Amino acid sequence: MRVSTYPLVDAGEAAALVLEHTPILGSEMRPLADCAGRVLAEDLIAPAALPADPVSAVDGFAVRAADAGRTLRILGESAAGRPYAGEVAAGTAARILTGGVVPDGADCVVMFEDVTAAGESVTVPAALQPGSNFHAAGADVRAGERLIASGSALGPAEIGLAAAVGMPELRVGRRPRIALLSTGDELVEVGRTPGRGQITDSNRWALLAALREAGAEVNLLGIAPDRPDELRELVTRALQDADVLVTSGGVSVGTHDLVKPLLESLGTVHVGRVKLKPGKPFTFATLGAGKVAFGLPGFPVSSLVTFEVFVRPALRKMQGLAQLQRPRLAVRLGFDARAVGDRTEYHRVTLHREGRDLVAQTTGSQSSSRLMSLAGAHALVRVPPGDQGMERGSFSEALILSLP
Amino acid sequence: MRVSTYPLVDAGEAAALVLEHTPILGSEMRPLADCAGRVLAEDLIAPAALPADPVSAVDGFAVRAADAGRTLRILGESAAGRPYAGEVAAGTAARILTGGVVPDGADCVVMFEDVTAAGESVTVPAALQPGSNFHAAGADVRAGERLIASGSALGPAEIGLAAAVGMPELRVGRRPRIALLSTGDELVEVGRTPGRGQITDSNRWALLAALREAGAEVNLLGIAPDRPDELRELVTRALQDADVLVTSGGVSVGTHDLVKPLLESLGTVHVGRVKLKPGKPFTFATLGAGKVAFGLPGFPVSSLVTFEVFVRPALRKMQGLAQLQRPRLAVRLGFDARAVGDRTEYHRVTLHREGRDLVAQTTGSQSSSRLMSLAGAHALVRVPPGDQGMERGSFSEALILSLP
Repeated sequence: MRVSTYPLVDAGEAAALVLEHTPILGSEMRPLADCAGRVLAEDLIAPAALPADPVSAVDGFAVRAADAGRTLRILGESAAGRPYAGEVAAGTAARILTGGVVPDGADCVVMFEDVTAAGESVTVPAALQPGSNFHAAGADVRAGERLIASGSALGPAEIGLAAAVGMPELRVGRRPRIALLSTGDELVEVGRTPGRGQITDSNRWALLAALREAGAEVNLLGIAPDRPDELRELVTRALQDADVLVTSGGVSVGTHDLVKPLLESLGTVHVGRVKLKPGKPFTFATLGAGKVAFGLPGFPVSSLVTFEVFVRPALRKMQGLAQLQRPRLAVRLGFDARAVGDRTEYHRVTLHREGRDLVAQTTGSQSSSRLMSLAGAHALVRVPPGDQGMERGSFSEALILSLP
Repeated sequence: MRVSTYPLVDAGEAAALVLEHTPILGSEMRPLADCAGRVLAEDLIAPAALPADPVSAVDGFAVRAADAGRTLRILGESAAGRPYAGEVAAGTAARILTGGVVPDGADCVVMFEDVTAAGESVTVPAALQPGSNFHAAGADVRAGERLIASGSALGPAEIGLAAAVGMPELRVGRRPRIALLSTGDELVEVGRTPGRGQITDSNRWALLAALREAGAEVNLLGIAPDRPDELRELVTRALQDADVLVTSGGVSVGTHDLVKPLLESLGTVHVGRVKLKPGKPFTFATLGAGKVAFGLPGFPVSSLVTFEVFVRPALRKMQGLAQLQRPRLAVRLGFDARAVGDRTEYHRVTLHREGRDLVAQTTGSQSSSRLMSLAGAHALVRVPPGDQGMERGSFSEALILSLP
């Protein structure tokens, strides 16, 4: 047993070091059906205006506004996909359906409900506004307009927009490939009965979910073998295909810890301990060839909190996202929050609405082994170290995981 | 052309009708690796306490607090997975590593940094607190405790918790299976050049993304055939495997609309028009055998807004989620919001922080064909119909899509 030789790095400094050493991965073309949740890797520029032609927003009649109050002769019909080819001259009208092109000559559409139609003629209201009830050509999108900025996450509206301007595929950031490993002699596979001193490996499943939610593809390496040589070979092989190694456990100072020596032998350890609670043993290393490794602590809450603080922003950077951090909102504390020692604490809270405020309540004991402090939590509240703490009723910035 | 015979239903009333007629689908057992984003279908109850044994939170020595200030004989070591079998009697200590079981007899753990160790003996500080630096047996989870309520969405912490208590699989709500169809003679496939009066089918790709994000599995039926008989056969066949039919377009009042007659022939239309802008032609039907159909309007924004207001809550109910609606937050309006006519409007806004407030800015022209009003939008602000409107600076409830 020895005292760690790694300096205790400030949590913010460690997060900055991680991002500094994390590369942006390349991009790839993907069909629209696969683009949801991906990150646009180049600006989407409109190749042409939308709509290309003026299009009716309602069912009715395309007329000239100057013909207000008159009875007009109906020339024909303009339906979606079947435009009326002729011109609407003074004294005439064209029947028009929602989505139909407004014929040349017409400058407004009158809703069907507002006219009196009889046979081949139609009487329109006494007051008509030019430009009403249709979408003018170019009203939605101008040719050459930047529609979506590179670095944006693609959701339904963005994907619809890309389709609307005729893009069957988009250039998106490549997903990071992760090799995920649990370490610890005490671990047994979920479903087996743990013996005395043994526990079920839960981190692998929690981290698998967290990694995928952050856009990564995960290769599950299982529980690390006992022997350093076998472990090194397993990891080296997995890193041929992976961009990132993520381990949990085995980063404390004890005699049986394997991860820090492994990372030292494979590359450079930049962070070996952080002033963070939970999460002090968090380790970050670069492995050469643009690959990085995260050694997460073994306690379940520690591994997920360090994932949030350090790994998730890095995975977002790798995919080219402009926004790396979780959203932050001001929340009113419903409890006194005080850090126990000299480390920044991330206190897990639920949120509820009280008038205009979001009020944070503690999830109870913040022990690093107590997953119940994180299950159902809506946010993490950063509690500064030292005696100051934060009083019930004061406002604080919360890192939002989900909203109530 | 005819005036619609469907009554204009209030938007809230329509949403209630949809949920009333939407069934909760069955459940299925899924392995943990597939449970992220799924919905727990029965309470998760802890079969046993966690931790099963008291476990050290640090590297150090397990001792009796009554031995404070003394030099103790080191008996052996308790590492994670390799517990020390003997008892720590008065005057003795056991070396202990993070995750190691605290041996019988010991009632506290002293951190390695706080002792003076020499050979086979260790001198501990003059003041020791019983219970310090270890997780007591049962401190994290009590046997029989309800850990996660049925109806909860499963994220990383919930999945980790299920693993920790030894559940290799969980009972989750079945995903809704959707048959998705675009209708409209004006539609061309994305990537083909539209002729005059034609537009690219964008709704299918936007709705595919929205449906999947809401947890559904989607069968893409393409663009509907022109002829009612072919359409009916296609839909009938698809509904053998699908729980839900979703169409876009073809629900206005025009002569070329196919969807309402189709739904009338297959089941019962409960909603044929709503007092909602965008989204007036929204249609909802039950088809028998617990199947439902959503006829969404053809304009891109209308289809996505009616998806948000009506379809997404229904898909969440089908999966058994307790929380059906998007989260709502109070936002300060950065613009005057006024409804144009007698329909409730969902105005698309971006959000930004100003001090403790979230401030909503309009995304510009709210035309139902302008997807740019929804791309990058963070929220929908509900604007009541009539002249009242909502003034810049006033607070409003916003339906949150994402946070800035």
